Amino acid sequence: MDQFLTSPRAIVDDVLDAVAALQPLLRSDPASGTRIVLQAERDPAQVAVLSGGGAGHEPAHAGFVGPGMLSGAIAGDLFASPGVEAVLAAIRACADAPGVLLVIKNYTGDRLNFGLAAERARAEGIDVASVLVADDIALPDAAQPRGIAGTVLVHKYVGHLAREGVALAELARRGQAFADRLLSLGMALSSCTVPGQHAGRRAPELGLGIHNEPGTRKVQPASVEEALALVLDPLLEQADARYGADAPLLLMLNDLGGCSTQELGVLTRLALQRIGTERIALMTLPAALMTSMDMHGFSITVAPADADALAALQSPVQTLGWPGVRVPHAPTHFAPALSRSDAHRHGARDAQRGAALARVAQALIAAQAELDALDAQTGDGDAGSTFAAGARALQQALDEDALATGADAPLAHGLAAAIERSMGGSSGVLLSILFTTAATELEAGHGWVPALQAGVARMQHYGGAQLGDRTMLDALLPALEALAHGGSTDDAARAARAGADATAQLTQARAGRSAAVPADALRGVVDPGADAVARACAAWGR
Amino acid sequence: MDQFLTSPRAIVDDVLDAVAALQPLLRSDPASGTRIVLQAERDPAQVAVLSGGGAGHEPAHAGFVGPGMLSGAIAGDLFASPGVEAVLAAIRACADAPGVLLVIKNYTGDRLNFGLAAERARAEGIDVASVLVADDIALPDAAQPRGIAGTVLVHKYVGHLAREGVALAELARRGQAFADRLLSLGMALSSCTVPGQHAGRRAPELGLGIHNEPGTRKVQPASVEEALALVLDPLLEQADARYGADAPLLLMLNDLGGCSTQELGVLTRLALQRIGTERIALMTLPAALMTSMDMHGFSITVAPADADALAALQSPVQTLGWPGVRVPHAPTHFAPALSRSDAHRHGARDAQRGAALARVAQALIAAQAELDALDAQTGDGDAGSTFAAGARALQQALDEDALATGADAPLAHGLAAAIERSMGGSSGVLLSILFTTAATELEAGHGWVPALQAGVARMQHYGGAQLGDRTMLDALLPALEALAHGGSTDDAARAARAGADATAQLTQARAGRSAAVPADALRGVVDPGADAVARACAAWGR
Repeated sequence: MDQFLTSPRAIVDDVLDAVAALQPLLRSDPASGTRIVLQAERDPAQVAVLSGGGAGHEPAHAGFVGPGMLSGAIAGDLFASPGVEAVLAAIRACADAPGVLLVIKNYTGDRLNFGLAAERARAEGIDVASVLVADDIALPDAAQPRGIAGTVLVHKYVGHLAREGVALAELARRGQAFADRLLSLGMALSSCTVPGQHAGRRAPELGLGIHNEPGTRKVQPASVEEALALVLDPLLEQADARYGADAPLLLMLNDLGGCSTQELGVLTRLALQRIGTERIALMTLPAALMTSMDMHGFSITVAPADADALAALQSPVQTLGWPGVRVPHAPTHFAPALSRSDAHRHGARDAQRGAALARVAQALIAAQAELDALDAQTGDGDAGSTFAAGARALQQALDEDALATGADAPLAHGLAAAIERSMGGSSGVLLSILFTTAATELEAGHGWVPALQAGVARMQHYGGAQLGDRTMLDALLPALEALAHGGSTDDAARAARAGADATAQLTQARAGRSAAVPADALRGVVDPGADAVARACAAWGR
Repeated sequence: MDQFLTSPRAIVDDVLDAVAALQPLLRSDPASGTRIVLQAERDPAQVAVLSGGGAGHEPAHAGFVGPGMLSGAIAGDLFASPGVEAVLAAIRACADAPGVLLVIKNYTGDRLNFGLAAERARAEGIDVASVLVADDIALPDAAQPRGIAGTVLVHKYVGHLAREGVALAELARRGQAFADRLLSLGMALSSCTVPGQHAGRRAPELGLGIHNEPGTRKVQPASVEEALALVLDPLLEQADARYGADAPLLLMLNDLGGCSTQELGVLTRLALQRIGTERIALMTLPAALMTSMDMHGFSITVAPADADALAALQSPVQTLGWPGVRVPHAPTHFAPALSRSDAHRHGARDAQRGAALARVAQALIAAQAELDALDAQTGDGDAGSTFAAGARALQQALDEDALATGADAPLAHGLAAAIERSMGGSSGVLLSILFTTAATELEAGHGWVPALQAGVARMQHYGGAQLGDRTMLDALLPALEALAHGGSTDDAARAARAGADATAQLTQARAGRSAAVPADALRGVVDPGADAVARACAAWGR
């Protein structure tokens, strides 16, 4: 199974069923052999606008049925025009309207089947006109350029005019004039998968239709910039020649089916840059609009941005597939307020605290190899290096007299900052959370012990670990508990050591570094984080 | 070049630039090393809602920034959490709001970096709260379920409440309660392409995160129905157990990045069918919402459909990525008005005309092999068979007395219908257009010659061919011209024959069957369509 698709015969009906379940539509009885969807509540005072063609181009065409766009759509099989009877039945269903406009993509099958249906409907007294879309510029001298993604813009344009009450003859005339000004070109990195066919995928091609036919030439773009230029430059050349080099443009970027959102974002950015944002009066949001199944490619459509067209494309619609439009603009930048690295250096100094902190730093630096070795038994062997990096940053801050050792909250902030900048990894962020929270508490007038307890609680909140998960908490929590019950720093150090040593018996961790390690590997090994905390407590109290 | 992407380092900024060009956003100065986007005109009376995380999930998160959803978003590198300073700078930029809510996906990196930023912001006096999203049910016993696509629904939910003026503490409480009720599960047919990495693609997997990590188990669905069941059944089982088997549900189908619109349509149809449309109170339109680059997979999210949640998800927003919601319903069918095959059999009979038509039919049946051979020299060799099929249908209609040979318009309609049903291919539709148009003209009181001329003009309109393109027109036009100038049927037959014979000298066709055939192959060969017309005219006049 290579795709999330039902059988080739079922796909078209399945997709139409999905559309008809999510949008207020009438769907022709499947047993009739036709695939017609119509707006459930069409305004009979408006000219009805119908379009359609082979399936495999979704969201075209059923995805564009809704107030302000298509009145209905007729689907054929995958890449095969619907039969004359289906088109005629759709027209007949709109016989109450003051005319029916057919929007036809310029492919022989569509032209003839929609054409015959139109003639038969006329013979029945229904007023029918048509707009033929032939926007593909892949073959400059083609007598019959294909109708491709630009068709979607025609749907939107004539759908808007029809809702505005424009009568059939004028609608057909203006719709054809709009269609005739559209220029489209596509390229793909590979051809599409046509269900039920097993053709090999083809290489990058320029000038693709939407039925998996080969492009007009093979290309080898070395970069996305080059790929975009291959598509955009011929379009702009024709646009400049036909509409003037300064003429503001409408721009549409169409996903042929297999582009990721990231690719559409990159292509959008490059297209805006290459054309110049200021020249683009309006852009449809990049989206899959006229696809060729899962073809990994895109097409671009440009047109002159007449006021008439701008208004039509901007008017809101209720459809599943129309993505909306935006007026592109140069991004507006702001300067983010970043932290000053020396924000907390000002405040009193306390020599005794400074000395205690220096002892902690020295103890952790000295333990680097031992802690790394401990970590190597159950993890990636860098716990000692991580703590030593933090310790060196602490040492340096003390050497540079950059810590306000005699001011409670500034000291806690200074420690948090030094740790965050130096330690990296989860341990660094967690300890930084501890000291940052403690600083807030100290600022609010709480003492060091409740402040640190609040900090540890936030560590647990964000880290998700509990006592017994073989983490720093297994030393931190007992140490703070001892202090909270009036114990000395020695008592705290003893509690921390006992807690750390006990981690050797813990073999099931729900969070933290040991969470994915089997019990056998953990048994008998002290957690290096808890051990580091115990060493720090011992050094502090000494 | 395999993808339309810039370098791994550039992608994230390029995509953000595209977003910032299409949506009214402020973007942090790229030189700052941060990637923050904020609503350009945030309402300072509302709690600000921020989210973010690693990039590669677009449209998440920047695509959901806009009134009614996120106030801002912070992006990291591809699949890597943004740094603490970036998150903190985004919070600071919203310091004028009555509180800042962080929506955090449950991954260690996001939890810690957003957590530390929150604590540092609190230390600066900014009121910050957070909602943690952990909607993935891939590992039922996971202590820390991952936050995946359900996050987008949380954005929408809290974004709506914030706009409604809900204060920070209540917003966090209700947001967390909503997040805790979300159930999501993903599967993919292949892993994604991470730019800059060259890991081989993996096989189908269930229970995927959004960072290309392996799924919780390998699967081998034999069909899309089976693939969908693998995802949906565990979700429904949990939903039934937690919310009751009758509880109406919210449904979200998320494209993980590489699904075609056709695949999303099929999956939607099957999901609605499997859950039961009547149980789904609301569905987001199927779309790429939380992607894992180009991963060819999807995820489904369900949640209980509380009135509170329904209202929040239905309220309109102005973002690039939110696709909107619909209330799914059973499709409403209508019976299309198809044509009755005997619609035109009633009317007078004319024995002489019947005999002439029979001679035409016999002539074309007799010419089958000769015309096929002619066609084989320049095309696919079936022109004779095609005309003979039409001729046999004509013969049969005459034999069954099903043609109103004595009534002008009904006869023309009858001929059009017999040809359409029997001939197939372009020639059949074109001749059917000719006779249908002629019928309309005859109905309006015109004579046969102008009626047929109008028909030929419509043939040209829809077919796109002109005199000299080596088509039926090269015999039809001279024959009608002869009649229009008062010539006899013999004159017409002679003109048709001269026209047909002259096609052997025509070597450049702009339309029709010879359009793609090289001149060398055409030289000296009479067009079989024109030849058939000449034979018909000769048989008619005899």
